[in-house]
Amino acid sequence: MTKKISIIGIGLIGSSIARAYRALESNIEINIIDKSISNLEKGKLNKLGNSFSEKVDSKIEGSDLVFICTPISAYENIFKKLNTLILSNSIITDVGSSKCKVIDLAEKILVNKVFVPGHPIAGTEKSGPENGFKDLFKDRWFISTYCKLCDDENINFVNSVWASFGSKTVTMKSKDHDSIMAITSHIPHLIAYNIVGTASGLEENIKSEVIKFSASGFRDFTRIASSDPTMWRDIMLSNKEEIIALIEKFNRDIKETLDAIKSDNGKFLFEKFKKTKEIREKIIEAGLDKF
Amino acid sequence: MTKKISIIGIGLIGSSIARAYRALESNIEINIIDKSISNLEKGKLNKLGNSFSEKVDSKIEGSDLVFICTPISAYENIFKKLNTLILSNSIITDVGSSKCKVIDLAEKILVNKVFVPGHPIAGTEKSGPENGFKDLFKDRWFISTYCKLCDDENINFVNSVWASFGSKTVTMKSKDHDSIMAITSHIPHLIAYNIVGTASGLEENIKSEVIKFSASGFRDFTRIASSDPTMWRDIMLSNKEEIIALIEKFNRDIKETLDAIKSDNGKFLFEKFKKTKEIREKIIEAGLDKF
Repeated sequence: MTKKISIIGIGLIGSSIARAYRALESNIEINIIDKSISNLEKGKLNKLGNSFSEKVDSKIEGSDLVFICTPISAYENIFKKLNTLILSNSIITDVGSSKCKVIDLAEKILVNKVFVPGHPIAGTEKSGPENGFKDLFKDRWFISTYCKLCDDENINFVNSVWASFGSKTVTMKSKDHDSIMAITSHIPHLIAYNIVGTASGLEENIKSEVIKFSASGFRDFTRIASSDPTMWRDIMLSNKEEIIALIEKFNRDIKETLDAIKSDNGKFLFEKFKKTKEIREKIIEAGLDKF
Repeated sequence: MTKKISIIGIGLIGSSIARAYRALESNIEINIIDKSISNLEKGKLNKLGNSFSEKVDSKIEGSDLVFICTPISAYENIFKKLNTLILSNSIITDVGSSKCKVIDLAEKILVNKVFVPGHPIAGTEKSGPENGFKDLFKDRWFISTYCKLCDDENINFVNSVWASFGSKTVTMKSKDHDSIMAITSHIPHLIAYNIVGTASGLEENIKSEVIKFSASGFRDFTRIASSDPTMWRDIMLSNKEEIIALIEKFNRDIKETLDAIKSDNGKFLFEKFKKTKEIREKIIEAGLDKF
């Protein structure tokens, strides 16, 4: 049984972890760290923790688990500070959306610490502690990845915690994680940010009409493109190799489609548009089209 | 009061028009034309019409309204056939997603006929007569556009029919319609088809993982990319000028973003990702984020 946890970063994910733990183990001691005073105030208001700090400090010592739930650009400083603390019985874990760069950094900085890289495939486009909820992770995937700072027992323990939140868990290589997330999450977000950005650049009179008639496809992109900008900046930079390679492939594909439109090649377009239905059908078959 | 209508093409939209009319005026005579025998069978099974034909023929004569609800590539033949019929008291209208090319064609072919170009901003990714429903157009926009083959009275009549289905109606220039739809609908569909297509081209082992973890953004694209391929082929080709111009702008924007990722320009990415939130907020303010 877990007696004490620390959560660094009390946004959507961090606050949902606090809520999920509290619902499971009412006596657990939750130590919350966030550099934003406003976030800490919201954390107190929502009774998310037993102690609150602006900085990573010795109050973290004695935690069974330390969850890092900040944007990835904050990890370097956090790892450095955690490295100065006594955490011999603690497992450090995180929820970042890219893993290879995070692991490189952890392996470079952390000495005699246990670190289990993690990533819950859950979230909404709303950020901040007020938007978290205890069932955010229910029926969603939690991915842990291998690294030199943890063994199978550590990984299994972290997986079991997420399973207790209701998540389905899986462990894979960090490289595989980053490839899969590039196509399922990072590229869709990048494209959505771009298309909404392209619309933002249109003349004012067209822009107001775009909002009025947004239900015809555009609206779905704006939802994706309203996710937290700091988090997504960090994801794009921390998984850049995978993202660049895939966007270049996407650009070649779109050029081919554009050429087909220019040359009235209806056959090419029909075949392309028909083929993509198959992937959708597999998602529906797997029961993944809802929730 | 409308006594008789003809619907050419009994797919999602055509069958929903039949259902909406029947709910409003139980005695209306509905004449259905579809080149697909399977669609006609489904139409009979669902009691959508009083008469059914595979071809555009004289049974259409005497209709108050003739709705063309086929893919745009079928319009030329349909206009030519309608032109041979006696339709002096009929209004021909359509539901096509692009308007300038459609109007060019109508003005070239139709002689002494009334044609009101129309476009209901409604639909689902499911096609076929079995998927239509009477409330498909409720609270959705219906756009009519000006052309030389109709006057304000004709337009107002068609608008009033759609208003009776529960739609909000607006009339605009065909060029404006095509510009707005390019950004709100055509480009999002083109991009979604492409990104799902890019994923289809990945190795098999990654592809099955992509489906498993599709909830993280990709799934929304697959929904859009599972729309009817014939309809979308025709839309891309019939609004090609607007689409080509916008995709070229989108490509320039994405190159700029990619350069920012390559050069670790976090400031550029943050500003870009932040700006797009504004459009989302305007959509939410306008109450257009749901349904």
